[in-house]
Amino acid sequence: MSKYIFRNDYSEGCHPNILKALTESNLVQSTPYGTDDYSNAARDLIRAEMGTKDTDIFFVSGGTLANLIIHACALKSHEAVIAPLSGHIQTNEAGAIEATGHKVIAADVVNGKLTAENLQKVIDTHNHFPHVTRPRLVYISNATEIGTVYRRDEVAALSKICRDNKLLFMIDGARMGAAIASEHSDLTLKDVASFADIFWIGGTKAGALFGEAIVIPNKALAEDFEIHLKQRGALLAKGSALGHQFKELFTDGLYFELAKRGNDMAAKMAQGIKAAGYEMAAECEANMLMAILPNDVITRLETEFDFYRWKVIDEERTQLRLVTSWATDGTKVDRFIEMLKS
Amino acid sequence: MSKYIFRNDYSEGCHPNILKALTESNLVQSTPYGTDDYSNAARDLIRAEMGTKDTDIFFVSGGTLANLIIHACALKSHEAVIAPLSGHIQTNEAGAIEATGHKVIAADVVNGKLTAENLQKVIDTHNHFPHVTRPRLVYISNATEIGTVYRRDEVAALSKICRDNKLLFMIDGARMGAAIASEHSDLTLKDVASFADIFWIGGTKAGALFGEAIVIPNKALAEDFEIHLKQRGALLAKGSALGHQFKELFTDGLYFELAKRGNDMAAKMAQGIKAAGYEMAAECEANMLMAILPNDVITRLETEFDFYRWKVIDEERTQLRLVTSWATDGTKVDRFIEMLKS
Amino acid sequence: MSKYIFRNDYSEGCHPNILKALTESNLVQSTPYGTDDYSNAARDLIRAEMGTKDTDIFFVSGGTLANLIIHACALKSHEAVIAPLSGHIQTNEAGAIEATGHKVIAADVVNGKLTAENLQKVIDTHNHFPHVTRPRLVYISNATEIGTVYRRDEVAALSKICRDNKLLFMIDGARMGAAIASEHSDLTLKDVASFADIFWIGGTKAGALFGEAIVIPNKALAEDFEIHLKQRGALLAKGSALGHQFKELFTDGLYFELAKRGNDMAAKMAQGIKAAGYEMAAECEANMLMAILPNDVITRLETEFDFYRWKVIDEERTQLRLVTSWATDGTKVDRFIEMLKS
Amino acid sequence: MSKYIFRNDYSEGCHPNILKALTESNLVQSTPYGTDDYSNAARDLIRAEMGTKDTDIFFVSGGTLANLIIHACALKSHEAVIAPLSGHIQTNEAGAIEATGHKVIAADVVNGKLTAENLQKVIDTHNHFPHVTRPRLVYISNATEIGTVYRRDEVAALSKICRDNKLLFMIDGARMGAAIASEHSDLTLKDVASFADIFWIGGTKAGALFGEAIVIPNKALAEDFEIHLKQRGALLAKGSALGHQFKELFTDGLYFELAKRGNDMAAKMAQGIKAAGYEMAAECEANMLMAILPNDVITRLETEFDFYRWKVIDEERTQLRLVTSWATDGTKVDRFIEMLKS
Repeated sequence: MSKYIFRNDYSEGCHPNILKALTESNLVQSTPYGTDDYSNAARDLIRAEMGTKDTDIFFVSGGTLANLIIHACALKSHEAVIAPLSGHIQTNEAGAIEATGHKVIAADVVNGKLTAENLQKVIDTHNHFPHVTRPRLVYISNATEIGTVYRRDEVAALSKICRDNKLLFMIDGARMGAAIASEHSDLTLKDVASFADIFWIGGTKAGALFGEAIVIPNKALAEDFEIHLKQRGALLAKGSALGHQFKELFTDGLYFELAKRGNDMAAKMAQGIKAAGYEMAAECEANMLMAILPNDVITRLETEFDFYRWKVIDEERTQLRLVTSWATDGTKVDRFIEMLKS
Repeated sequence: MSKYIFRNDYSEGCHPNILKALTESNLVQSTPYGTDDYSNAARDLIRAEMGTKDTDIFFVSGGTLANLIIHACALKSHEAVIAPLSGHIQTNEAGAIEATGHKVIAADVVNGKLTAENLQKVIDTHNHFPHVTRPRLVYISNATEIGTVYRRDEVAALSKICRDNKLLFMIDGARMGAAIASEHSDLTLKDVASFADIFWIGGTKAGALFGEAIVIPNKALAEDFEIHLKQRGALLAKGSALGHQFKELFTDGLYFELAKRGNDMAAKMAQGIKAAGYEMAAECEANMLMAILPNDVITRLETEFDFYRWKVIDEERTQLRLVTSWATDGTKVDRFIEMLKS
Repeated sequence: MSKYIFRNDYSEGCHPNILKALTESNLVQSTPYGTDDYSNAARDLIRAEMGTKDTDIFFVSGGTLANLIIHACALKSHEAVIAPLSGHIQTNEAGAIEATGHKVIAADVVNGKLTAENLQKVIDTHNHFPHVTRPRLVYISNATEIGTVYRRDEVAALSKICRDNKLLFMIDGARMGAAIASEHSDLTLKDVASFADIFWIGGTKAGALFGEAIVIPNKALAEDFEIHLKQRGALLAKGSALGHQFKELFTDGLYFELAKRGNDMAAKMAQGIKAAGYEMAAECEANMLMAILPNDVITRLETEFDFYRWKVIDEERTQLRLVTSWATDGTKVDRFIEMLKS
Repeated sequence: MSKYIFRNDYSEGCHPNILKALTESNLVQSTPYGTDDYSNAARDLIRAEMGTKDTDIFFVSGGTLANLIIHACALKSHEAVIAPLSGHIQTNEAGAIEATGHKVIAADVVNGKLTAENLQKVIDTHNHFPHVTRPRLVYISNATEIGTVYRRDEVAALSKICRDNKLLFMIDGARMGAAIASEHSDLTLKDVASFADIFWIGGTKAGALFGEAIVIPNKALAEDFEIHLKQRGALLAKGSALGHQFKELFTDGLYFELAKRGNDMAAKMAQGIKAAGYEMAAECEANMLMAILPNDVITRLETEFDFYRWKVIDEERTQLRLVTSWATDGTKVDRFIEMLKS
């Protein structure tokens, strides 16, 4: 019997509506490279969610691809990005940003997040030109790598610093759904579109088979964007395969409904962990938990579950990362909690 | 009524078997990043076709991504690739190879193909070191950009020159199926695996929804290849979505059966064009035609069909590119020929 | 006895005035990185020659460094340069431009030069976006790689096409002195500054020990230019070493006087070659000759001289490249001609 | 009256022997690109100092250029360098390494130095492949950015870790002379050549007008190195200008004699600062001082001296960086100490 996977939020396929849409239209001819009707419909649905009319939107197959293309597009060769020390582009993208030629300048984090104060500190001390690169972009991910989410005023404050300092502001939204749907935040997608110059809305971890939507509120960054897509290998020939997915996800609020379900599963699991007397390394605010458990408990859990041993805390305890999603089997969450108690 | 598209071989979705497989396994959990059972099964099927046991195989979402990763992996920073003047990486990938830092050295073509003689000529004249880059890789695409295919001895000759000159040999197989299935060539996939150091087998244009399989007969090139995939944004989280597709395509010879169908459609269309008294700019050997038609005929065809005006021949005639595929509607080919005659 | 070198224009040291200036100021402290008084004086002297007041000017140690920094600065990642097929960045810089991530698009040449017609042709056919890079820069070198020079109206025409097509125009002036001083051209440095967005004035081949001056008439390109210099390793700590050289060269017209001397030597040599009954592959317009000589004559000349066998013409003749400079020993030119006759 | 500069070690020209050598040979023809007799003689002198016979040595015009070329040469595209947080490539080269496509992984420092323990820690925790880059190179600078120097056993320990982990080891020797000549270290140039795979010996800060010598004990890294030089714009046409400088510096031990003089000046200054009752932020072990002085004292010193305000310590004190060199005027050191006391 294989173990149930709480290691990530991309172990299953996609929401059934997507497979249905793909199947129904399968032999209908479409124009290529994202110019098809389904992609355009998806764009309109996302725009409606943001309350905008003509924001440029492009679909790509994965998150690292989205991140590296945004950097390649936004930065001139002597410019750099400021990102939290724990940011995905710092730690988990195999040097993808540097491979496009740009330095990733580290900023300290608080609770997994870049604070206005820490951002300002990096800006203030990174001024020994021409011996240092020119910071031009600020990167955050929301939800963060440890499952916390930004409040509206936190994003607003970062955005203001960026605008005051002629910095572009980007948000990696691999888990944007979970962040927006979180009960711990008042941030809306409309807010995101008003605060960020460019951001992406994750599909892969939120009900799609694959794919992310890059949204570009700052028109200047949208110019020639398709050339950037092509140059980095991201211009999918059968773009409708991406269009279908975002069309389905943004119909009747499905995207946020699925995100909420993932968050609820995580909340339930967090509650169970706390109820069993264990500590969390970070508040569970989205669909990810950072739980600190005794090693013997972990070993027992590992007989039935697969998850990520994130960090050794001390000789007896380890911090785990547990991730839920729209597809999480609720009975497995119950079983996990049950095993914790015994 | 929308026009029927002969512009490319990626206007429809995918072979129904693929959608069926995705649907049936949709909520089954899989391990990520290409480590899943479906991907492994697909690898074994492809290996069986090549008669090898442990050749490394990786799946990516598109062809330009495959090409740029292969170059980033195979070349050191001072090294370059030699490619035919009409090669896809020269003309249609928005500088993707150069964006990884490498020069694409042009070689002359004959009938769309790189010849042994022209390759040798470039090698012989590209020796003014250190003022020129070091050629290290030779690129061809098969089928070519004009729909011709390489014979076994042609590929063997190129491969020999490469090995004699310490050059790596890669084959862009966006239309590898059409090339292998072509009646005009005796080349097999097993041959390709023995002649090339690295190559890729196209799925997008051959029955998949998206995806290409990178095959690496030369073990040295496979080292750390996943890091290259990750760094270029090609390590799909739900790798099983790619695994399923190649598993289905390489089950019971479906891949070559579909390719043959596309070729047959093109052959039929070519026959019709010739029968109507018109000339071809290149022999139709795979699933692509380069037909030279009078402008008034073209205008009439454009009322019902969409295709690519490739090149102006003279004041009265234009060269068209017409492409067929596994999904081409045979009645539309008939109708096209019928309109030609009238 | 070593052979006399006509292979290039960088076999000797520098004009004695430069060594004198370096020696006299040797232990005087200067501010670093090109902020010193000598560099500023040099800038003013060059500006006076162009009739401008505040044009930005930067000094770097060599020509390839100048070229690659200009490209890294002027181009965004998806943009490309158009350059003549025989251009130095195409053929003799080891992929330096591609190593900064940019494609070099080839244009045909006439008499070593990019013509307005050929430039327009590349622009007109390079429009299949997003599948091709965006041309943004046009590169020429003057004098050309075969020793011809551009007339004022030729440069004006190229400049006009660039401005009409939102293309930046750069001129590689490794032999700018020879071009301006040429009797075959009416182009002035003032013209160059009005036609080009950015260009460089070669010192290495024109009397300096090393060093080139990058001149940026288009203010937008000068922004953060020092960061580009630093990032590419071109911000010389003891910038005064470059400042001194250009200060001396642009005092009292020395730069053009030296260039003229190099041209005169070449003209004399060309005259001798023609008088001896031999052909030239290109008109000698600057300080370089492309002479076609019988192989037995060449073998005899090689007993006393070192030069470049450029190209085999036929079984009996080879095209030589011969280069003169400000430092050429006139008696050696005489001896060369004398040997030709015998 | 201009202030006396203690801001850096590159305010003056070069040792007079160099100007003498350049002047005497000025009109003698040399072969280009570092193939000349002077460069070869310089190579032999450096080899003699290291006790080796055929170590490859290349000369370039500056330190950032040396660093970026070494990285471009040593690393494949998915590989990264580990460098101390305060390393020059981290903090003061405007993203030069990242611009060649490689991530610079930060390691903590102790007393300005990378310790074996901290190096091992980075190696041990940087293993989440393929999501992280592959560390392949370890970088240190000696003397460090704060003027401390490595002992022989410290370098030996780092070298051993590198070899045990298949990592290449490079040493940035912008101040290699000062490090070797330091009374605080027992390291010799011969040691450096045995421990490092590649390193460079700084000329710019040690008596040359410009130029650094890249030394490559690991033969594999020397292959095609000239192509790397050319591609990055570092292959100086008149290479003899570099050859002369290193020939003079490595004749009769001049290089280390000059370095010792710089160190002695710094030691004297450090002694004066301590005698005046002030603290040092780091032990002065080479030609650089990190002194902590009261702001009013600094303001007074600034009426006669130019130096670098490195860091605010508290409301009343600031850390200064003071640098001496072979060319430092001893009477100015005396005057500086005198002003401190008053």
